[in-house]
Amino acid sequence: MTSEELFLQIKAKKSYLCVGLDTDIRKIPQHLMAEEDPVFAFNKAIIDATADCCVAYKPNIAFYEAQGPQGWESLRKTLNYIPDSHFTIADAKRGDIGNTSGLYARTFFDVAAAGLDFDAVTVAPYMGHDSVEPFLEYKTKWVILLALTSNPGGDDFQRLKVDDKPLYEHVLTTSQNWADSDRLMYVVGATQADALSHIRKIVPEHFLLVPGVGAQGGSLKEVSRHGMNKHCGLLVNASRSILYASSGTDFAEKAQVEARTVQEEMAHYLSEFMSPGIQ
Amino acid sequence: MTSEELFLQIKAKKSYLCVGLDTDIRKIPQHLMAEEDPVFAFNKAIIDATADCCVAYKPNIAFYEAQGPQGWESLRKTLNYIPDSHFTIADAKRGDIGNTSGLYARTFFDVAAAGLDFDAVTVAPYMGHDSVEPFLEYKTKWVILLALTSNPGGDDFQRLKVDDKPLYEHVLTTSQNWADSDRLMYVVGATQADALSHIRKIVPEHFLLVPGVGAQGGSLKEVSRHGMNKHCGLLVNASRSILYASSGTDFAEKAQVEARTVQEEMAHYLSEFMSPGIQ
Repeated sequence: MTSEELFLQIKAKKSYLCVGLDTDIRKIPQHLMAEEDPVFAFNKAIIDATADCCVAYKPNIAFYEAQGPQGWESLRKTLNYIPDSHFTIADAKRGDIGNTSGLYARTFFDVAAAGLDFDAVTVAPYMGHDSVEPFLEYKTKWVILLALTSNPGGDDFQRLKVDDKPLYEHVLTTSQNWADSDRLMYVVGATQADALSHIRKIVPEHFLLVPGVGAQGGSLKEVSRHGMNKHCGLLVNASRSILYASSGTDFAEKAQVEARTVQEEMAHYLSEFMSPGIQ
Repeated sequence: MTSEELFLQIKAKKSYLCVGLDTDIRKIPQHLMAEEDPVFAFNKAIIDATADCCVAYKPNIAFYEAQGPQGWESLRKTLNYIPDSHFTIADAKRGDIGNTSGLYARTFFDVAAAGLDFDAVTVAPYMGHDSVEPFLEYKTKWVILLALTSNPGGDDFQRLKVDDKPLYEHVLTTSQNWADSDRLMYVVGATQADALSHIRKIVPEHFLLVPGVGAQGGSLKEVSRHGMNKHCGLLVNASRSILYASSGTDFAEKAQVEARTVQEEMAHYLSEFMSPGIQ
């Protein structure tokens, strides 16, 4: 999916919501455990319930990997079930030397390898350019590079000062030589809304994937105020607050209510903070 | 496996060789493709041929992941086949927020999750302490943290100066608060032999996992001279040079010759560079 197509979806739905499919088999409603593939049954219901409210889905690969081979089967079925209209992100935080990153890229981008055909994968920057380039060799695909994360340990290294600038800023500036804003996004944690205006100046055109709204405590309003650009430029992720809105048989219904609430808030901010706004 | 047990193995075999199981289905000998599980058939033959020469095996997870669910089955069978006497490393370069890292830890450490029970997993440091701690909650397991890698992009961020010290040095010093040297190792690329003496001063007790000898151009002698401590303190990995020593039906025999050659060189260095040396 191109950045133009993504923006069209955002305008059509008045939403920049990404639903994180952090599907934990220990948390899904009990009645689904009788299904042949409970994780897929859960995801299918969540996708049916939320597709109208969101523009992207982001399976968190750890949750599938922890189920062994069956988890990868659930992941493949889930990805195939997501409508083509939605941007798909493998949240995998991969990154290794070139030939190994090449295999991770095959895993998530080449349907002939593991049956997966994501639009984007999240990548860790520590190993530098040749750990990222193999993903960019897939010309219709995206890399979403970790820049500033919202977890407590994010400060251990990401904010260390190099030439008076935090490390994450060097990640932003250096990586702009690797790809344009139509192939590269950045992960920026939502609890760092203060840093968002600053980041927006460094990468004015790029989409930012913002986790951490909701369960992790970030404010959607502040993120939208400080992070939006003239093509929206934001994908804001919510996972647990939607997936586990109810643990009963009404889980999908409650997930839809939650997703719709977020979408309506987003519609407001697309009108208020984007210029020209969407009415 | 404890560090004492690992050192006993090193002394018994006069070897600190780790064989990297970067098993590429596109590169394994043609005659194995008729097997039900060609990747496992290849690994089984490599393990049989090299177990006497090495103390550790390191499957590179990307190679298995790129095969989809079948790859995870091959990985599980391979891990089960490795003798208990050998240290096992999931080379996965994972790292995410706490609850997600917890699931990666389950994947590789908890046999009840994905059928895997590795001794160690490689972890990327960018997201800081809470991305690493979930792995350390498995009290008999190890984290092998990326410090200085040997790929060209390793210099993009790892050598940036923070308070006059390169970033990788901050990773080494900060992470020493997270675990002791009997639970934590570091990845240090072998093409950085000049940096090894320096790193050895910062982390005198820790094991260093050194990839990049052989195909990536590092010198085993220089690595051993600069990196060894009084408990050896090194695991030196070789992958392609052993796995693909021959592409014919004699691949295992040639792999053994190659592994034995490295082991004999290591026996020499254990005598020459360790104090007291192993005679």
